Amino acid sequence: MKNAYLASLSLDSSETSPLHRQLFLKLRDSILQGVIKPGTRLPSSRLLANDLRVSRNTVLTAFDQLMAEGYITSRVGAGSYISDHLPDELLQRKKHDAKAPAPVRKIRLSRQAEALRHTGNIKPYHQGPFSPGKPELDLFPFEDWARLLGRHWRKPKKEYLSGNPIGGATVLREALAEHLGQTRAVNCTPEQVIVLSGSQQAIHLVIRAFAEIGDPILMEDPGYPGTRNSILAAGAHPIPVPVDDEGFSLKDAIRLAPDARLACLSPSHQYPLGPTMSLRRRLDLLEWAKTKDRFLLEDDYDSEYRYTGRPLSSLQGLDTDNRVLYVGSMSKVMFSGLRIGYLVVPPELVDVFLALRRDVDGHSPAVAEAALAEFISEGYLSAHIRRMRLLYQKRQSCLIALLHEKCSEFLQVEAQECGMHLVAFLNPEISDKQIEQTCRKEGMMLRALSSFYEGADLQNALIIGFAGTPEKEMPQLVDKLALILNQTKAA
Amino acid sequence: MKNAYLASLSLDSSETSPLHRQLFLKLRDSILQGVIKPGTRLPSSRLLANDLRVSRNTVLTAFDQLMAEGYITSRVGAGSYISDHLPDELLQRKKHDAKAPAPVRKIRLSRQAEALRHTGNIKPYHQGPFSPGKPELDLFPFEDWARLLGRHWRKPKKEYLSGNPIGGATVLREALAEHLGQTRAVNCTPEQVIVLSGSQQAIHLVIRAFAEIGDPILMEDPGYPGTRNSILAAGAHPIPVPVDDEGFSLKDAIRLAPDARLACLSPSHQYPLGPTMSLRRRLDLLEWAKTKDRFLLEDDYDSEYRYTGRPLSSLQGLDTDNRVLYVGSMSKVMFSGLRIGYLVVPPELVDVFLALRRDVDGHSPAVAEAALAEFISEGYLSAHIRRMRLLYQKRQSCLIALLHEKCSEFLQVEAQECGMHLVAFLNPEISDKQIEQTCRKEGMMLRALSSFYEGADLQNALIIGFAGTPEKEMPQLVDKLALILNQTKAA
Repeated sequence: MKNAYLASLSLDSSETSPLHRQLFLKLRDSILQGVIKPGTRLPSSRLLANDLRVSRNTVLTAFDQLMAEGYITSRVGAGSYISDHLPDELLQRKKHDAKAPAPVRKIRLSRQAEALRHTGNIKPYHQGPFSPGKPELDLFPFEDWARLLGRHWRKPKKEYLSGNPIGGATVLREALAEHLGQTRAVNCTPEQVIVLSGSQQAIHLVIRAFAEIGDPILMEDPGYPGTRNSILAAGAHPIPVPVDDEGFSLKDAIRLAPDARLACLSPSHQYPLGPTMSLRRRLDLLEWAKTKDRFLLEDDYDSEYRYTGRPLSSLQGLDTDNRVLYVGSMSKVMFSGLRIGYLVVPPELVDVFLALRRDVDGHSPAVAEAALAEFISEGYLSAHIRRMRLLYQKRQSCLIALLHEKCSEFLQVEAQECGMHLVAFLNPEISDKQIEQTCRKEGMMLRALSSFYEGADLQNALIIGFAGTPEKEMPQLVDKLALILNQTKAA
Repeated sequence: MKNAYLASLSLDSSETSPLHRQLFLKLRDSILQGVIKPGTRLPSSRLLANDLRVSRNTVLTAFDQLMAEGYITSRVGAGSYISDHLPDELLQRKKHDAKAPAPVRKIRLSRQAEALRHTGNIKPYHQGPFSPGKPELDLFPFEDWARLLGRHWRKPKKEYLSGNPIGGATVLREALAEHLGQTRAVNCTPEQVIVLSGSQQAIHLVIRAFAEIGDPILMEDPGYPGTRNSILAAGAHPIPVPVDDEGFSLKDAIRLAPDARLACLSPSHQYPLGPTMSLRRRLDLLEWAKTKDRFLLEDDYDSEYRYTGRPLSSLQGLDTDNRVLYVGSMSKVMFSGLRIGYLVVPPELVDVFLALRRDVDGHSPAVAEAALAEFISEGYLSAHIRRMRLLYQKRQSCLIALLHEKCSEFLQVEAQECGMHLVAFLNPEISDKQIEQTCRKEGMMLRALSSFYEGADLQNALIIGFAGTPEKEMPQLVDKLALILNQTKAA
């Protein structure tokens, strides 16, 4: 019986990992790499502690762990031995190094996962000047928000710490049902409101509820890329439908995919082009849904910021046949890092959406939901929206004036009735994607309209966010943009 | 040209909804129900304000809204008229009442949604005495947690308010990689850690990444119902595999579904039976995965609470061929309302999991993640776990002693090496489901083991949580349980 030779072991007391843990891992590696062979006797804990200049307790703790995991066995009165039961193939294994380059191998994944592999950028979306959808964060009442949250966290209700309902905290569902009824004429009970971790989750769930593999799903063209990705991820086919002055073209939709059972729309403020769907088109869509057994996903992503007239009522509020699934989010009226959105579903679909939601992630954090309910019912939210509406309106006017003054030879732009971004149509010889790329290098995060199109009949324009960009920064930014447009045209 | 007769309108100043909103909705309903016909002229705002005893501004605001939505038109010098363009079918519509019973109709949903319709209870899971998995919430350091959160919320970093990376805040991914390396011997870089909104989301994503419709997916029997639901929701088939003393029976798995490419396991502490998977079985599983191109989902749900020996290293840490997808959660070591879990994936699968996660809900709230990173790195988490481990160990001993003393004629129970619940095997003539039902009426939330089985070869036992139940409440609770056992046996 050989004694293990362990002189090469050394421990580092400056490491954050405790000494017994270091010793355990080093011994385990020595065993697994075959440096210490099965059947070998380990030195006594006293001897090893002496050699390594650590306490005997450190060695005993490491030995305990090795024994608990089956690497060593102990024979009464005879010390500790490397276990004989380690399979041979384990003994020459190399240390696994997670930092090594990934081996080249093809892992077979599901069709849905493969579809998602090719849906573009998974890097975090960096917001900056001109980012569409970026709200003004400096003027959000974080002190109030922190106070509301703090009140809950210091003495949290038990019900908020575990077992939040799948559809969200009751107080928030009630506050949202009332808020949506008052501001968007959404007609629903609190039970129909399902609180989610953002509008993307709502879109994902609606598509998952209706789409079979291979199904056609109607969406606007141009439209929201997140919707397209979710359709692809469900193994379904996105059918891009043109958008005319009245909004989503139902006529084209029926021609392109007569059997499609779900249409994804943004009637209040078409994303990203901007028109508001006409009342007539709304009624036509609802009638089509009712007579043909279709369903409508209404993405009401930024309708709170309307500058002319008042916010239009939702499609959901006009629906008399439970055909609309209404999606909204706090990302634009508060900030996207809050991760709270909601879905309002027809009464008979509440249960199945709760089951779908339970499967994807159970439920949302209740404390943030309870604080948000107070933020809404105590009036903080509507006060913030009112302030931001005035601010964004001024920012829009300022940006339009500057674009007219400095970029009018390259683009045409008009005021938007609502929302957080302008659509500046470029002269045909200028590529919006090229401008987007160059602007990005300069830190200006505007987007190319053409990248939101699926079909070939696309328009060349810049989507320029104004909500999150202070007026005083705008002149310099527009100067830079004018320079880029000029250089790109000349090139 | 008739004038509209609006005398029946009345507004209620005690309602929370503003008067102009009430007026808008009443007028709209009158128009939609055909009470006021297309082409009818509305009374002047001054007259109507007088009749209704409201300010003229209130009436003008309501008229503006009706005009913006296309219900009325204004002719210069001639007042306001109900729009002629309202389609006929709209005019006899009944007021939609969301509170009415849902109409009986069959909505055709996707196969996945239909599968989920039948996967049981969607009511919130109420926790109480004896709930398995319920941690002690009264002793959690909420003051510290509120302070860490408050520090961030009062002056939040911009990067935490929008554009959090899909995989989670970098600080948390780093803290988790280090924590998991030290406590569970998980071998990974921070990039391999994907922060999610709980372990259910992790399980859902892993199954979605691998399962095609109709695929067999291996899971433990008895096993975690959330895993089974996610398999069903993917349109795949859960294959229940028996659990023996060494854990998941690989031999049976190969016999039952030779082609299954994914096995879902809880090696550290089999859920809900309790055994820890032997080293030999772990190595066999890893070898099988490597040679047959299989993948292993390791659900490490409560291994932090180990009472004898030290926590066993993870299967992931033994894996040399990137075959393990490691799932963990903060629900047991903190509380489930936090909604933070994580998935550690092989390096070459990071991107596809980020794409899958982006589709289901984008990303998690960064501020909570940043606060959690500090909670971990400043030592609060491990201090809390240490305190809870001692407390839970005492609670387990206390509960076992009481069960031995008062229920030994009905059940057999032994100490668990780790975890938060006991498995008390009942005499064969007593139905665990019946006991569960009766206990629930008494507020005792223990679970029937047999309901965790898929196969026919099931055992009759009670899953009794001890972690969240104070010692001083236990005698009375066990008395009640003994009474119920006695009555059930007699019946």
